[in-house]
Amino acid sequence: MIIVMNASATDSQLAAVIEKIREAGLTEHISRGTERIIVGAIGDERSLSEQAFELLPGVERAIHIVKQYKIVAREGHPDGTIVDIRGVKLGGKDVQVIAGPCSVETQEQMHLAAAGVHAAGCKLMRGGAFKPRTSPYAFQGLGVTGLEYFGKAAREYKLPIVTELMDVRMLDTFMEHDVDVIQIGARNMQNFDLLKEVGRVNKPVILKRGLSATISELLMAAEYIAAGGNHNIILCERGIRTFETAYRNVLDITAIPVLKKETHLPVVIDPSHAGGKAWMVPALARAAVAAGADGLLIEMHPNPCEAWCDADQALTPQELKDLMVSLKAIAQAIGRDLA
Amino acid sequence: MIIVMNASATDSQLAAVIEKIREAGLTEHISRGTERIIVGAIGDERSLSEQAFELLPGVERAIHIVKQYKIVAREGHPDGTIVDIRGVKLGGKDVQVIAGPCSVETQEQMHLAAAGVHAAGCKLMRGGAFKPRTSPYAFQGLGVTGLEYFGKAAREYKLPIVTELMDVRMLDTFMEHDVDVIQIGARNMQNFDLLKEVGRVNKPVILKRGLSATISELLMAAEYIAAGGNHNIILCERGIRTFETAYRNVLDITAIPVLKKETHLPVVIDPSHAGGKAWMVPALARAAVAAGADGLLIEMHPNPCEAWCDADQALTPQELKDLMVSLKAIAQAIGRDLA
Amino acid sequence: MIIVMNASATDSQLAAVIEKIREAGLTEHISRGTERIIVGAIGDERSLSEQAFELLPGVERAIHIVKQYKIVAREGHPDGTIVDIRGVKLGGKDVQVIAGPCSVETQEQMHLAAAGVHAAGCKLMRGGAFKPRTSPYAFQGLGVTGLEYFGKAAREYKLPIVTELMDVRMLDTFMEHDVDVIQIGARNMQNFDLLKEVGRVNKPVILKRGLSATISELLMAAEYIAAGGNHNIILCERGIRTFETAYRNVLDITAIPVLKKETHLPVVIDPSHAGGKAWMVPALARAAVAAGADGLLIEMHPNPCEAWCDADQALTPQELKDLMVSLKAIAQAIGRDLA
Amino acid sequence: MIIVMNASATDSQLAAVIEKIREAGLTEHISRGTERIIVGAIGDERSLSEQAFELLPGVERAIHIVKQYKIVAREGHPDGTIVDIRGVKLGGKDVQVIAGPCSVETQEQMHLAAAGVHAAGCKLMRGGAFKPRTSPYAFQGLGVTGLEYFGKAAREYKLPIVTELMDVRMLDTFMEHDVDVIQIGARNMQNFDLLKEVGRVNKPVILKRGLSATISELLMAAEYIAAGGNHNIILCERGIRTFETAYRNVLDITAIPVLKKETHLPVVIDPSHAGGKAWMVPALARAAVAAGADGLLIEMHPNPCEAWCDADQALTPQELKDLMVSLKAIAQAIGRDLA
Repeated sequence: MIIVMNASATDSQLAAVIEKIREAGLTEHISRGTERIIVGAIGDERSLSEQAFELLPGVERAIHIVKQYKIVAREGHPDGTIVDIRGVKLGGKDVQVIAGPCSVETQEQMHLAAAGVHAAGCKLMRGGAFKPRTSPYAFQGLGVTGLEYFGKAAREYKLPIVTELMDVRMLDTFMEHDVDVIQIGARNMQNFDLLKEVGRVNKPVILKRGLSATISELLMAAEYIAAGGNHNIILCERGIRTFETAYRNVLDITAIPVLKKETHLPVVIDPSHAGGKAWMVPALARAAVAAGADGLLIEMHPNPCEAWCDADQALTPQELKDLMVSLKAIAQAIGRDLA
Repeated sequence: MIIVMNASATDSQLAAVIEKIREAGLTEHISRGTERIIVGAIGDERSLSEQAFELLPGVERAIHIVKQYKIVAREGHPDGTIVDIRGVKLGGKDVQVIAGPCSVETQEQMHLAAAGVHAAGCKLMRGGAFKPRTSPYAFQGLGVTGLEYFGKAAREYKLPIVTELMDVRMLDTFMEHDVDVIQIGARNMQNFDLLKEVGRVNKPVILKRGLSATISELLMAAEYIAAGGNHNIILCERGIRTFETAYRNVLDITAIPVLKKETHLPVVIDPSHAGGKAWMVPALARAAVAAGADGLLIEMHPNPCEAWCDADQALTPQELKDLMVSLKAIAQAIGRDLA
Repeated sequence: MIIVMNASATDSQLAAVIEKIREAGLTEHISRGTERIIVGAIGDERSLSEQAFELLPGVERAIHIVKQYKIVAREGHPDGTIVDIRGVKLGGKDVQVIAGPCSVETQEQMHLAAAGVHAAGCKLMRGGAFKPRTSPYAFQGLGVTGLEYFGKAAREYKLPIVTELMDVRMLDTFMEHDVDVIQIGARNMQNFDLLKEVGRVNKPVILKRGLSATISELLMAAEYIAAGGNHNIILCERGIRTFETAYRNVLDITAIPVLKKETHLPVVIDPSHAGGKAWMVPALARAAVAAGADGLLIEMHPNPCEAWCDADQALTPQELKDLMVSLKAIAQAIGRDLA
Repeated sequence: MIIVMNASATDSQLAAVIEKIREAGLTEHISRGTERIIVGAIGDERSLSEQAFELLPGVERAIHIVKQYKIVAREGHPDGTIVDIRGVKLGGKDVQVIAGPCSVETQEQMHLAAAGVHAAGCKLMRGGAFKPRTSPYAFQGLGVTGLEYFGKAAREYKLPIVTELMDVRMLDTFMEHDVDVIQIGARNMQNFDLLKEVGRVNKPVILKRGLSATISELLMAAEYIAAGGNHNIILCERGIRTFETAYRNVLDITAIPVLKKETHLPVVIDPSHAGGKAWMVPALARAAVAAGADGLLIEMHPNPCEAWCDADQALTPQELKDLMVSLKAIAQAIGRDLA
């Protein structure tokens, strides 16, 4: 950590800073400039708080030099992590497309959806049994019944299933129903008790970036899961909140190269939630693959017009199939492939 | 709801829109303009989804006319709600200052803090036993022991206590420890399962606005609590996330008059978390009272330099006392008072 | 325009709204709902101000139904505009890459840069003679001398030149120096006097989106130019300002499909300014082409380490050449080509 | 400046950093930590570019320690600047309210407006003759005729006038028409040629913060003016752009204490543009005074319903008069006064 002090800081103010550094088991290194005094704290600075130093008289600011995340950092872990989901590999050469409806509605809908996912050549299926909804009066998901419909439909095509966990009390139920990938939604990215619990199980987790979470916060949230022992984490960028009102969210494509540099975890993109309209999905999905995403989460519904939620962002089975063709061409253009 | 269609929409496209309106039990009203066809849906539109209409061919956009929140809306409930916290009234003429440390650390610290809160003339006390921290390696709060220290110290001065609930599984413990006001933190504003649970108990709740939550989303989150039966809700603005990096968050002062107009619930402000620096707190606190806030949440620590977290945003007991004097003068300047 | 009134609005309040509509030469259409009265204003609503209606008693809000831009709108102009820049076509099947250094430094640097642009196969060259800099103490560009160096170097390879105009008083000088494309920078997107002036000349204009400009504001700024008679406008997305601090700006990839839908003007992307680091440029450039951009503005410097400004965002000539290969593959994957 | 290098940086990489520091006439100071090497550059670092260092191999990041603004900085200039506007002092003990219509419409309107400004006890008058409008089809201001109407009306009550300059070519006309304070609008905050020109004249300037400009960028824009020799600069916060759509902009009240700490220049607030609705103005104006603003810019129109632009944000003369009473009470509550 670097502590910047005023050039006019007194000796006793400097001594107080030094004492605080030594208390934490680090050593100081002082450099007097013309306008400021710079104090470096040498040793493992993760235990130091910037704020605790900024409070001391004479101190202008304190700056962490080392990133706060450790297990998930690419530094010291140069190879990318490949998450194995019942034999389907996410994070390797193949780009994986995880498709399916926003929410589980009926057994028949799920059968049709699974057939469409399979027909398009996707190897993983998504669908929500528990739905986070802005309004308490909106459809909240079928719950456990939804997990059953989903499991039954997906098993027919041997598709591993991805579904969202909102309530920590439902984790055991998820395990009993053989959910293959637990999704933590954007609104729960900093629900720390939930992160700790999924950190204790042995299941892959897709962690979605919060609407206004920084890259650093996303990685710290992943670190919560990793610190519990579960390293099968997949990060998901799904659009961030900005001032723009012409579309629901802004898909942050820059997050892809930056995350790939900062962490060894796989990175997937959700173009459906980002834009919020089905007609935007192909352009966003293509951009994500071109930018180096390891996978995509795409909403597809056997009959979008009848969908119980987010109707206007789902592709039809045919649209998904068509999109897969161009995604494969782009993947190959950058030396990857699409399963 | 208003559905805007292209002027070139066909009769069958229009018929599909009308059918969807009638299916939901509403009636349509059609108005043909030169460039667009406008279809009004008359009746209780809350059950209609904008997206379901935007998906239909020929439809350009659908616009809700009525707000989605109902119980918490000022409309139909012109008088402001006064929340009674063991005899202390929040939402009436008196502005209430809720003061105390960021986190509960030791029994002694809490005794000193309670003495400072009392000496400054504040009637409610805050303090965190469970702390949401960005890093899994940071101090996570004392937990249940913290609740005990807090209760013991506050009882001495008959101060009702305000503390944050993060995990739905701890709600019973909060009830057993006689927490007077349950705080839902910014990161949990859309933790819907948690909202539903606190909606079932008979305790005042302070609901903090999420870092990037809109006014409408904050009110919908409050509606979740209210829909469960608990109407003792206090809304808290605590700074929003923007592009500015010179301070932690931007205190959204405009939220005060807008919330007071939209809802009958009391509105409090947390100037400590917003700015993130103790020296900013007096200016922000004064602004909040001048703009019409019903209360403030202010961090005060008996010895800020030794605080275990957010050290640089806590006032000293003396600074709090001094601030109360100017807050009282401002309250009186706008026809209110400070307890 | 739709005017939403309270259900309790009086007859005279309604009459006032109707009068205002008729005054503007439109006709009203009234629809009484259970909770609101909806008044539609039928006719050319562009002359009506939402605010003027929202001020009237009983009115809750007024909503424009038709977009405010007209000449630049795709509606009524289904074919995309192809801008011809001395024979180089932008907006057609071929994706164009406009490359060159951030700023013009020396004649030699520009010769080397032009050689690199040519060698990579790019057909247009960029470079700044007038530089908008945050600090008054930073290098402000070579000015007219820079235009001379640029013109001389580019002519050797028959590369049309793109350069930024900041000051309306320099427009004549730009014309005299045969600037081929006038760039309006992000900070000047709403410098309306500058827009009006470039609207009067017969030169292609690249209009960069402001750091926090909405899609609608960008299109209205283009409308300023178009209203003056100059329809050779190319829109450029170059990153928007958000809360994220891990990179300079967030490249808004969603703007590409949305702009292509809303306007007939070509859309180019500047991945260099968006991310702010050379190592991010290839991923962002690939994403832009995959999402349907008509062109790219890429910074390349013969010797980035010695660049006088924005050194760390320029590619080397070899990096540009390599990037062009993968961009071509992606363009072909989506049915386009790279010149 | 501090340059952070990887612990694995080679000796020659370190040597390159040192060379670059010495080239600029500074000296280096090296501190080797366990995970990073820290190099301090001692001397006047303002000439160094962070980017030029971040480009060098082995360098992770470079951090400026000293602020880039100098003339406008509070550091080295502890006393606040008081700007004298024809005898009216802005920046001293008295809070000044600058009131008037959004735009100059007719001579009669301006006479009524001036009478209202005077009757409310305000000592400065605002009004726009040149209007920056998002749409080219909207009313663009009366231009020079507007300056004439404004001057004539204001002179009657001896009110100094404040009006916006958009086009550098109009500066002479502003001087001829005895404009007392030149306003630079938010959209032109980084119109550097305009800033340079108003830096050369001897007139007070109100510099409005751009919609998404940081505090640091605002101060750098002021530094442009100051560097030209004109130190009579008044900073104005007028709302920033965020994700919130319930109001036009978010008034950034935190900017007041932060600017007062960072610069010696006076700070005024424009509550009318921030919220965008007249009913929000009193709460925001009170908050601004309570937070320590030196002045306010408030829109008042003799007949808001008939205003040619921004009708719904103007107060009536009576509303302004009433507001002044409560603003005076708040000013006195914090030890200031209202003229």
